Amino acid sequence: MKAIAVEPGAGEPTLVERPRPEPEPGEALVRTLRVGVDGTDHEVIAGHHGEVPAGEDRLVLGHEAVGVVEDSNGTALEEGAVVVPTVRRSPTAVGTNDYFERGEPDMAPDGEYVERGIVGEHGFMAEYFTSPAEYLVEIPEELASLGFLVEPISISEKAFEHAFASRSAFDWEPESALVLGNGSLGLLTLAMLEDVLEFDRTYCLGRRDRPDPTIDAVEKLGATYIDSRETPVPEIPDAYEAVDFVYEATGYARHAVETVDALAPNGVGALLGVPEPWEFEVDGGRLHREMVLHNKALVGTVNSHRGHFESAVDTLTQLPDWFTDDLVTGVYGIEEYQKAFETGDDVVKTAVEFASL
Amino acid sequence: MKAIAVEPGAGEPTLVERPRPEPEPGEALVRTLRVGVDGTDHEVIAGHHGEVPAGEDRLVLGHEAVGVVEDSNGTALEEGAVVVPTVRRSPTAVGTNDYFERGEPDMAPDGEYVERGIVGEHGFMAEYFTSPAEYLVEIPEELASLGFLVEPISISEKAFEHAFASRSAFDWEPESALVLGNGSLGLLTLAMLEDVLEFDRTYCLGRRDRPDPTIDAVEKLGATYIDSRETPVPEIPDAYEAVDFVYEATGYARHAVETVDALAPNGVGALLGVPEPWEFEVDGGRLHREMVLHNKALVGTVNSHRGHFESAVDTLTQLPDWFTDDLVTGVYGIEEYQKAFETGDDVVKTAVEFASL
Repeated sequence: MKAIAVEPGAGEPTLVERPRPEPEPGEALVRTLRVGVDGTDHEVIAGHHGEVPAGEDRLVLGHEAVGVVEDSNGTALEEGAVVVPTVRRSPTAVGTNDYFERGEPDMAPDGEYVERGIVGEHGFMAEYFTSPAEYLVEIPEELASLGFLVEPISISEKAFEHAFASRSAFDWEPESALVLGNGSLGLLTLAMLEDVLEFDRTYCLGRRDRPDPTIDAVEKLGATYIDSRETPVPEIPDAYEAVDFVYEATGYARHAVETVDALAPNGVGALLGVPEPWEFEVDGGRLHREMVLHNKALVGTVNSHRGHFESAVDTLTQLPDWFTDDLVTGVYGIEEYQKAFETGDDVVKTAVEFASL
Repeated sequence: MKAIAVEPGAGEPTLVERPRPEPEPGEALVRTLRVGVDGTDHEVIAGHHGEVPAGEDRLVLGHEAVGVVEDSNGTALEEGAVVVPTVRRSPTAVGTNDYFERGEPDMAPDGEYVERGIVGEHGFMAEYFTSPAEYLVEIPEELASLGFLVEPISISEKAFEHAFASRSAFDWEPESALVLGNGSLGLLTLAMLEDVLEFDRTYCLGRRDRPDPTIDAVEKLGATYIDSRETPVPEIPDAYEAVDFVYEATGYARHAVETVDALAPNGVGALLGVPEPWEFEVDGGRLHREMVLHNKALVGTVNSHRGHFESAVDTLTQLPDWFTDDLVTGVYGIEEYQKAFETGDDVVKTAVEFASL
C-alpha cells in the first residue's frame, strides 16, 4: 500500500510502498479516508520534533485521520463505521501503563507514550492502518469528509477543560477571549469560542496583511482581528480590552509571557505552542506580582484523550458550514500529496485524501 | 484607646491614641485579643505596599486578628464569642459590589476592595475594632490564643483550593510538595501539607545556616530542608525530585519562573509572593515548551474569603501543639509592641497582645 513518510531532516515527505498492516487481536483494520496536515507535521518534516520508530529510518506521517473500518477483526466495531483514531499509544508492545489504563494518555510524561505520526510510531498517512478498537472513535457518516478536523478540535477541547478547571474554585463568567495565532488551530479554536462556547467578544492575533483568507474568516466569525505588528500583546488591554481567556497557539515564547499582560483579573491563559529554547529579558517581578494580585493562571496543555475526541465530534457538528468550507483550502489525492504540504498565504488547512467513502 | 499605626515610609510603627469605634448597624464591636505580624506588615511599614485611608495620614496596622465580641449590637453574634475578622471590605461606605455579594472579595480586582490594615482602611491593631458581623468568623474559645494564625492559614487554604482546582480535570494524586520560603507562612503551609493534606514527601527551601529554629521546625515536621545557596530551585529535581506541587512564598520573582523547572509532569505551582518590578533573562522558550509538553500550571493567588477562614479554623485544630509553640516565637503586650516588629534569625512569628480572654 502507499504511505507518506519522512526521513527526519530530509525536508520533505515522500511516497513509499509499505505492506498493508494485519490487525492484532483487539485491533481493527481501517481504510484511510483523509488525513489532515498541521504545524506539527511541518515540524517533524523539518526535523525539529518527532522520532522515527525504533530500528526504522522513516516515519509515516499523519495524526489527524478519518477512516472506515475495513475489518473489525472480532472487536465491537462495525465494519463500514466511520472512525477517527486517537494519537497516543502505550510505548510497550505488550501491556500498557497507568495513564492509558485510566484513559488519560494525554497526561503521560515522556517515555510513557508514543504518538502515531509524531513520536516513535507510524502515523495514519497510508491507505490502511490498524489500531486497538478502544482508540477508534466512531463519528456520524455525514462528518466523514471533515473527520480529520476532530483531532485538532480535541486539542482545544482539552485546553478548554483544563484552563476552565483552573477557574472552577470561584464564580467565573468569562465574556472575552483572545486567540494568539491565526493558523488552522487558532481559527478552529476561535470558531469554538464564538459558536459553541458563545463568548461575547473574541479577538484573534496574527501578523498578516489584508486581503487574507484567515482575516476574512476571523471577521466573518464575528471576532476582531488584531495585527501584532500594530498592537503587540501587552498593548491589547489598552487598545481593546483585557480578556478573560487567552489561547496561545503560536509557539512564540514571548506570547506565553505576554499572556499575563493580556489577561483581565482572574483570567487564565492556555498555552499550547511548543517553542525551541530561547533566552530573552522579561520583567519577571511585574509578571509575578500581576499573577498574584489578580489571581491569574497559566495552564500548559498537550494532546487529548478519547473523551475530548467525543466532545470534538459534537463540536464539529456545531461549526457553521461556511466556516469549515473556508478553513479547508485544499484536499489532495495521494498522487498529488505534495500540494497538501505546501504553505502560503492562501493555505489554511489541507488534507490528503486516500479514499472516498 | 491605644492603637499601633504607621505613617507610610516612616520606617517604624508608633503607638497612637484613637477614639474607641462605635459599631454601625449590622456591625459588632470586638475587643482585640492578639494581632499577628507578617511580611505584609513589614512591607507597609517600609512603604513598599499599602495605602492610608482617604484623608488620613496614618494607617492602623494589623490584618491577622482574633478578638472577643464586646457588643453584638443586635447582630446574630453572641457577646463573648471569640472571632477572627476577614480582611477585605467593600471600598464604598454604603453598599457593596458583586464580589462581596457572592462571598468572593478575594477575587475582587483593584479598586473594588480595601484591605483592613493594608490598603485604604484601618487594621485591627487597636484595643477595639468594629466589623460587619458577616466578616467575623467564630472560632472555638480554646483556639483564642492562636486565633491570629487563622488569617495566614486561610491564605494557604485558598492557594490549595485554586491550585488543586487547576488539576481537577484529570486524575491527580500528588505525593510531593515543595515550599519556597521558610518564613512563618512557608512553615505554616509546610505543616498543612505534612499533617493535614498528608503529602508523602515535603521539602522547604530557605537560605539560612544551622542552627536555626525554622530549619529545626522543617525537620521536626518530617520535611527536607533545602538550602537555596547549595541547591538552586532548578537543580532540585536532580538533587531531590521533581515535585507535584510548589508553593511560592518568597516574593522572589526568579522563583516564580523556576517553579516550572521544579515541577514534575502535570504539577502545579501556586504563586503568592508580591515582588517589585525586576527585569532579568529567562529561557522563555524552554519554560513555555516545558509547561505545554508536561501539562504544567502556574496559579497566582491572593487573599482569602470567609470559607477559607472556616477551613483554616479546622486546620488549626489539626496542627501539632509543638509546631505552633515553636512557630510563635514571641507575643508582646501593647507596651512592648515594638518587639513584635523586630526581625532576626530567632524570630519566626510574633503577635501583639491587646488583652487576654
